[in-house]
Amino acid sequence: MGMIGGGPGAFIGAVHRTAAAMDGLIELVGGAFSSDAQKSKSMAGALNLPAERVYGSWQEMIEKEKALPANERMDFVSIVTPNHVHFAPAKAALEAGFDVVMDKPMTFDLAEAKELKQIVEKTNRYLCLTHTYTGYPMVKEARQQVANGALGAVRKIFVTYPQGWLSQFLEGTDSKQAAWRTDPSRSGIAGAMGDIGTHAFNLTEYITGLQVTVLCAQINIVVEGRKLDDDGAVLLQYNNGATGVLMASQIMAGEENNLTIKVYGEKGGLVWCHEDANSLLLKWLEAPMQTLRAGTGYLSDVAKHNTRTPSGHPEGFLEAFANHYRNFALCVGAREEGRQPKEEWLDFPSVDEGVRGMAFIENVIASGKSEQKWTKFEV
Amino acid sequence: MGMIGGGPGAFIGAVHRTAAAMDGLIELVGGAFSSDAQKSKSMAGALNLPAERVYGSWQEMIEKEKALPANERMDFVSIVTPNHVHFAPAKAALEAGFDVVMDKPMTFDLAEAKELKQIVEKTNRYLCLTHTYTGYPMVKEARQQVANGALGAVRKIFVTYPQGWLSQFLEGTDSKQAAWRTDPSRSGIAGAMGDIGTHAFNLTEYITGLQVTVLCAQINIVVEGRKLDDDGAVLLQYNNGATGVLMASQIMAGEENNLTIKVYGEKGGLVWCHEDANSLLLKWLEAPMQTLRAGTGYLSDVAKHNTRTPSGHPEGFLEAFANHYRNFALCVGAREEGRQPKEEWLDFPSVDEGVRGMAFIENVIASGKSEQKWTKFEV
Amino acid sequence: MGMIGGGPGAFIGAVHRTAAAMDGLIELVGGAFSSDAQKSKSMAGALNLPAERVYGSWQEMIEKEKALPANERMDFVSIVTPNHVHFAPAKAALEAGFDVVMDKPMTFDLAEAKELKQIVEKTNRYLCLTHTYTGYPMVKEARQQVANGALGAVRKIFVTYPQGWLSQFLEGTDSKQAAWRTDPSRSGIAGAMGDIGTHAFNLTEYITGLQVTVLCAQINIVVEGRKLDDDGAVLLQYNNGATGVLMASQIMAGEENNLTIKVYGEKGGLVWCHEDANSLLLKWLEAPMQTLRAGTGYLSDVAKHNTRTPSGHPEGFLEAFANHYRNFALCVGAREEGRQPKEEWLDFPSVDEGVRGMAFIENVIASGKSEQKWTKFEV
Amino acid sequence: MGMIGGGPGAFIGAVHRTAAAMDGLIELVGGAFSSDAQKSKSMAGALNLPAERVYGSWQEMIEKEKALPANERMDFVSIVTPNHVHFAPAKAALEAGFDVVMDKPMTFDLAEAKELKQIVEKTNRYLCLTHTYTGYPMVKEARQQVANGALGAVRKIFVTYPQGWLSQFLEGTDSKQAAWRTDPSRSGIAGAMGDIGTHAFNLTEYITGLQVTVLCAQINIVVEGRKLDDDGAVLLQYNNGATGVLMASQIMAGEENNLTIKVYGEKGGLVWCHEDANSLLLKWLEAPMQTLRAGTGYLSDVAKHNTRTPSGHPEGFLEAFANHYRNFALCVGAREEGRQPKEEWLDFPSVDEGVRGMAFIENVIASGKSEQKWTKFEV
Repeated sequence: MGMIGGGPGAFIGAVHRTAAAMDGLIELVGGAFSSDAQKSKSMAGALNLPAERVYGSWQEMIEKEKALPANERMDFVSIVTPNHVHFAPAKAALEAGFDVVMDKPMTFDLAEAKELKQIVEKTNRYLCLTHTYTGYPMVKEARQQVANGALGAVRKIFVTYPQGWLSQFLEGTDSKQAAWRTDPSRSGIAGAMGDIGTHAFNLTEYITGLQVTVLCAQINIVVEGRKLDDDGAVLLQYNNGATGVLMASQIMAGEENNLTIKVYGEKGGLVWCHEDANSLLLKWLEAPMQTLRAGTGYLSDVAKHNTRTPSGHPEGFLEAFANHYRNFALCVGAREEGRQPKEEWLDFPSVDEGVRGMAFIENVIASGKSEQKWTKFEV
Repeated sequence: MGMIGGGPGAFIGAVHRTAAAMDGLIELVGGAFSSDAQKSKSMAGALNLPAERVYGSWQEMIEKEKALPANERMDFVSIVTPNHVHFAPAKAALEAGFDVVMDKPMTFDLAEAKELKQIVEKTNRYLCLTHTYTGYPMVKEARQQVANGALGAVRKIFVTYPQGWLSQFLEGTDSKQAAWRTDPSRSGIAGAMGDIGTHAFNLTEYITGLQVTVLCAQINIVVEGRKLDDDGAVLLQYNNGATGVLMASQIMAGEENNLTIKVYGEKGGLVWCHEDANSLLLKWLEAPMQTLRAGTGYLSDVAKHNTRTPSGHPEGFLEAFANHYRNFALCVGAREEGRQPKEEWLDFPSVDEGVRGMAFIENVIASGKSEQKWTKFEV
Repeated sequence: MGMIGGGPGAFIGAVHRTAAAMDGLIELVGGAFSSDAQKSKSMAGALNLPAERVYGSWQEMIEKEKALPANERMDFVSIVTPNHVHFAPAKAALEAGFDVVMDKPMTFDLAEAKELKQIVEKTNRYLCLTHTYTGYPMVKEARQQVANGALGAVRKIFVTYPQGWLSQFLEGTDSKQAAWRTDPSRSGIAGAMGDIGTHAFNLTEYITGLQVTVLCAQINIVVEGRKLDDDGAVLLQYNNGATGVLMASQIMAGEENNLTIKVYGEKGGLVWCHEDANSLLLKWLEAPMQTLRAGTGYLSDVAKHNTRTPSGHPEGFLEAFANHYRNFALCVGAREEGRQPKEEWLDFPSVDEGVRGMAFIENVIASGKSEQKWTKFEV
Repeated sequence: MGMIGGGPGAFIGAVHRTAAAMDGLIELVGGAFSSDAQKSKSMAGALNLPAERVYGSWQEMIEKEKALPANERMDFVSIVTPNHVHFAPAKAALEAGFDVVMDKPMTFDLAEAKELKQIVEKTNRYLCLTHTYTGYPMVKEARQQVANGALGAVRKIFVTYPQGWLSQFLEGTDSKQAAWRTDPSRSGIAGAMGDIGTHAFNLTEYITGLQVTVLCAQINIVVEGRKLDDDGAVLLQYNNGATGVLMASQIMAGEENNLTIKVYGEKGGLVWCHEDANSLLLKWLEAPMQTLRAGTGYLSDVAKHNTRTPSGHPEGFLEAFANHYRNFALCVGAREEGRQPKEEWLDFPSVDEGVRGMAFIENVIASGKSEQKWTKFEV
C-alpha cells in the first residue's frame, strides 16, 4: 500500500494506516504524505519507511511505483487527503493500474464522481470508499435482517449523526481539521452534510437496500462567520414509499460521534448506534426486544466474517475501518491469484456508493436553498 | 372532583383518578362516566360512589352539583372524554363556576380553543390541561437549566415521540382506544400529530421558553385504510432563530412511548427521555457529561417540589400526572382560602398551552398538505 | 386504615399513605402518628383528619377504634414506626381483631418475630410486611420465569443493595433518618443489614423460591463512631445447592438505591435492577438477550395484575408499594365479604417472610463476628 | 517478534498478533506456533512468514534466532501457550537475552512465578504480562483519579467477572479452549479463578494502588464432571483497611465478558465496565454523576497516551491489548537506542503483577478448601 496524504497532524491518515496494518494482510511500503514535499519526507522515520519510497508528490509516487518490478511495487493506493485532492490522484492511480482505497466523500463534486465511475469501469480496478460505519459487523447484521424480511416491508427510517466539535468558530484557531472542513475550496459545497451527512445517508441505503427518491432539507450555518453548513435536517422519501428523517449536525454541543439509525417495518424495528456498536436491537410488535451481540454464534455469516473476537470483547472504529481494508485486500489478492472473490469480500463501499453520496450532497444543498418543498433526488 | 368520561374500558380516566387520589388532596365525589347513562351508572360500585352522584350525562352532573350546598358539591371537573366532547362540558363547567382539568388536545379544533380561552378569562377559573410530560420533575429541571442560561442561547431542538401500537389496522378490531383516536369525527383533523405530536410540541416550548414560528411537515398515513395520520416529521423554526425537528409516529413497530427531547445551546446540551424519566443528562463542550437525578439535593426548588421520594426511588407516569393535579388543587385551594398561590403551584399547563397545541395541529396538517416549503405558524 | 407512626419529618409514613391512597380502595381514617401526643395531633390538619381520630398514642388508637361501630372503625392498622415499636402495636392490633400492614424489618429481634407469627396464626388476621421490591411487576415476572423453569435449575444468585447516604457521620447531624437507623436501641443489632440487607435477602428467596441454608459474612462499620454496621458482604448457600453473594452497603458514596439481582440457571440468567424497574432482562446461552417490559401483553397474569398503565408509561416505587397495599386490601375485603381471595392477591410478604428476615439479621451478624467460616442459617 | 503458541484454532494467539501489528511498531518475523512441529509449520503461509523462520519447537526458535545477526533476529518473544508452557520458554528466552511478552496467568504455579521474577531481575529484560484490562485508557484514568485523591481514601472495592461459556460440559466436546482451561495438568490448580479471577484481582490492585492482605473464598465446581473451579466469590481485605468482594464465574449463563469494577471512597465512587469500556463513571456524594469518555481533552496524560482516536470513536479489546504491546515495544526500543523510557511507557503489567497473580491463585484456592474464615494472603 502506498498512501497519499496523512502527513503530520492529520487524523484520518493514521486511522487508515492502523486499520490497514491490523490484520497482517497489508504493508505500507511508501507514500506521498503531504503536498509539501518536505513534510511528506519527514514521515519516513516515524513510519519506518525507506527514504526512497517517501515521495515529494503523489504524481511522483504513482510514476515511480509503476516503474518498479511487479513484486516490489505497491499493490494499491490509499487516498486520505482533503476532498479537493481526491479525484486527480484516484484517476491517475487507476489509470496506472492500481486499485484504490479513498476516504469519503468521494470527490469534490458530482461531476467528478460520475467521471471516476467511468474510469473505474474502464480500468476494471477495485475502488473502496471508506464509509466506516458499514464496516461494523452489527450494521452488516442489520442489513441481513432487513434483507431476510424479519421486519417486513420497511416503512420508516430515522438516522441522526450528532457532533458538537464545531460549536465554536474553530476555523479561527489553528485547528487543521476545522480549517479544511469548513473551507469551500477544499471541502466543496457542503460542510456537515458532506462530512457526516453522507455517512448517515449511506448507512440508510446500505441497511435497507432502498434508495432515496425525493428530499426536503433545512440547511443551517449556525456559527457566525462560518462558510459552510454546520447543521441540517432532511425529510426523505424512499423508492418503496417509506419515509425518513436524516439529521446531521456539528453544533450539538457536548455530542461526540453517536451516529444512530432506526428502521421500522411492518413487524418490528431495529436500532443501531455507534456508542454501543457491538449491539443491534431488534424490537417486535408483540414480543420482547432482543439485543443481538457481535461475536455470537447466532449471527449471519457476513457479520461473523467481519468480527475478530468472541462476544464480549468489544471491537470498535478501527476494526470497522479494518474490515473494509481487509475485504478490499482479499479481493485484490484473489484477482492477483486468479481466484473469484467470495461474495462477503465484495461487501465494501464502491464507486457506486461514492456517486450516490456526491448526489446526496448536491441535492441536499440545492433543497436547502429552495423554496419548493420537495426536491427530486437526481444523480 | 367530578369526572366526565372515564367509563368502562377507558385508559386515561383511570390514570386521572389514580393521579388525583395519590396525594390525599382530592376526592372523587361524583361523575358522568359515559355518554351512555347505564354505563355511567355502572361505575358507582367500582368507584365506591353513592348512586345519586353518578349521573346519566355531564349536563346533569353540572346542573345538579351546582345546586348542592357549597361545602358538598364537587370542587372542580375533570374531563377525560374523546376530543369532540371537550369543549362543551368545559364551557358549561366554567360558566357554572367550576374549575376544570382536561385531557389534551384541548378541543376539537382551534376555533373552539380560542373561544375556550375567552371563557376561562371571563369566568376567572383555573383550567389545567394534562400534558403529562411537563409534570415530570426532571423536565421542570430542564426548563430551569435553560432559563438559567446553563446552555447559553438555544440553537437546536430535537424531539421525537415514537409509538408502535398502531402499526396494524387496530381500528378494524374491537380496540376502543384505536377506534376513536383514528376517527376524524371524534379526534379532529389529526391522528398521531394530535394525540402525541402535541405533547412533543408542548414539551419543546415548555423546556426552552421559545415559540415555533415556521414549520414544514411531512404527514403520512402509513397503515392502509386509516383515515388520520399515523406518522409524521416536522422541520421547525423558533422565535430566537433556533431550528428543530419533531417526529411523532404510531407505526414505529416495537416502540412503546419513549418521548425524547434534546436541546443544544452554545455551551452544552440536555437530553431527557421518558424511559429514564428520573434522569436529566447535561452535556458540555469540554467537560464530562453530568447525570442529574430526581430526588437529589442539588436540583432546583421547582424540581424538588414535584418529587415525593428520595433519589433512587423512581417515580413515574402517574406521579407526573399527579403533579399537575396537585399543583392545580393547591391553586384552587388557595383561592378558596383567599391566599395567593405560590409560583411553583401555577406551573401547570393552562388554556394558553391548549390554544398553541390546537394551533400546532392546524398548522402542521396544513403544512403536510402544502407544496410550499415553509408554513407560518398562525394562532 | 389507621396509621401508627409517620409523624412530622418521617419519610416512610408518607410513602405508605400515598401508596394506600392511590387505588381508591383504602381511606386513611385515623392515626397515632408520633410517640409525642402533641406531634401526633399536629398531623390532623395536614391529613384532613377529624381531630377525634388522631390519637395521642397507639394504645389509645387501638382501644378507641375497636370500640367504634364496625362500619365506622378502621379496617386495619399500618405500622410505620422505627423497629423497636413494631412488635407491641402489631400484637395489640392483631389481638384487637385488626389486620396489620407493617414496615420491615418486622420486629426488633427474632424472638419477637417468632412470637408474632404465633399471634398471627392464632388471631387468623392478615399481616403484610412491606418489602417494597417484591411489589414490582417485573420482580413478580422474574419469579414466574424461574418457577416455570425457563432458566433451568438455579445455580448462582447475586444481589447487591448499594446506598451512599451514610458515607458521613450523619447521626451527628439533625438527620432523624440517620439517628434511629444507626441506633441499636431503636434498630436492633443490625444497621445496613437490617435496613436494606433484609430487602436483598428477601428478594433472592422470593424470586428463586429457594432458601438460604448456610452463610459467611463480612460485616463492617466503616464510618468512625458509628454503632451499627454500615456495610457488608455475605457468601450464601441455598437449599438446592446453588450459591450466592449478597452485598448491602450504605457507604458506597454516590450510590442511590439501585438494588440489583442476577440469577443464573442451567439455561440462562435474569437481571433486574431498581434503576430500570420496568424492565427484566433474560439472558440465554445461545440466543439474544431479551428485555421484557412492564405493561406488555406477553407477561404473566400476576405481572399484569400488578401494573396500572400500558407499556412505556413507567411505574415506580410508590406503585410497587401500592401493589402490596392493594393485594392486602383485596384479601381483607374478600374476607369481609366472605369470598375467597384470588391467588394473586395473596402474593404479598407475610409474617413468614418477616420471620426469615429477622433470622437473616441474627445469622448474618453472628457470622460477621465468627471466626468460623460457615454459619448455619437457624430460624 | 517471535511467537510461541498461537497455532491453528487458538484464540489468544491471533489477538496477540493483531494487537502487536496495529501500531506499525512490531513485526512478526517468526514463530513456533504449536508443540506439534507440523502444525507449527502450517502457519507459515497464513502468516506470510518465510518457512525457515517457522520452527518446530520453541527451543529451536530461541536457539536459531539467537544465532542470527542482531539486526535480523527477533527483538522479543511472545508466549501465548497454555499455562503449563509459560515458564520454560520464558526462562529460556530471557536467558537468551530476549525480552518477553506473555499471557496470564504468568506461570503454572507460584514457585515458578517467583523463580521467573529472579530471572527477570538477573537478566535485566522486560517482561510484559498481558492483563488486557489495565490497557484500557479509562482504566488508566480510574487509577489516576484514585491516585489524585478524587475519591478520598478507598473504602470498598467490588469486582465481578461474569462469563457463561462454560455453563455446559464443553470439555466433553471438541472445544480446544474448554479442554485446556479445565485441565489441571495444563491450567494448574485453578480454573475460573486462574483464567479470569486473576484479571479481576489485578484490576483492583492496579486501580486502587492497594494490596490484598486477607481473603475468604467460596470456590465451586458447578458443572458435573468438571475438574477445576468454574465459579467463585471472595471476600477481601486490603492493606489500608478497605474491604472488597471479587466474583468470577464461567457458569453465569448468558453472560459474555463484562468485567466490572466499582471503587468507593470517602467522597465518591467510580465504576468501569468492559461493556462500556470507553466510559468511566464518577459518582459523587452531593453532586451529579459524571461520565468521563475516552479521547476527550479533559483526561489525564496517561489516558490520552493510550488512545488512538478522538472521543466518540470507540476503541476496544484489541486496542487495549495493543497498548501493552506498544508500551512494551517503546521501552524495548528505548533501551536499544540507549534512551530512558518515559514513565507512561513503563505502565504495563510486569513480573511483579505476575507473582501477585499466582499468589492470588494459590491463596484463593487454599481458602476455598479451608474451614477457617480468613486466609492471610501469602506471596
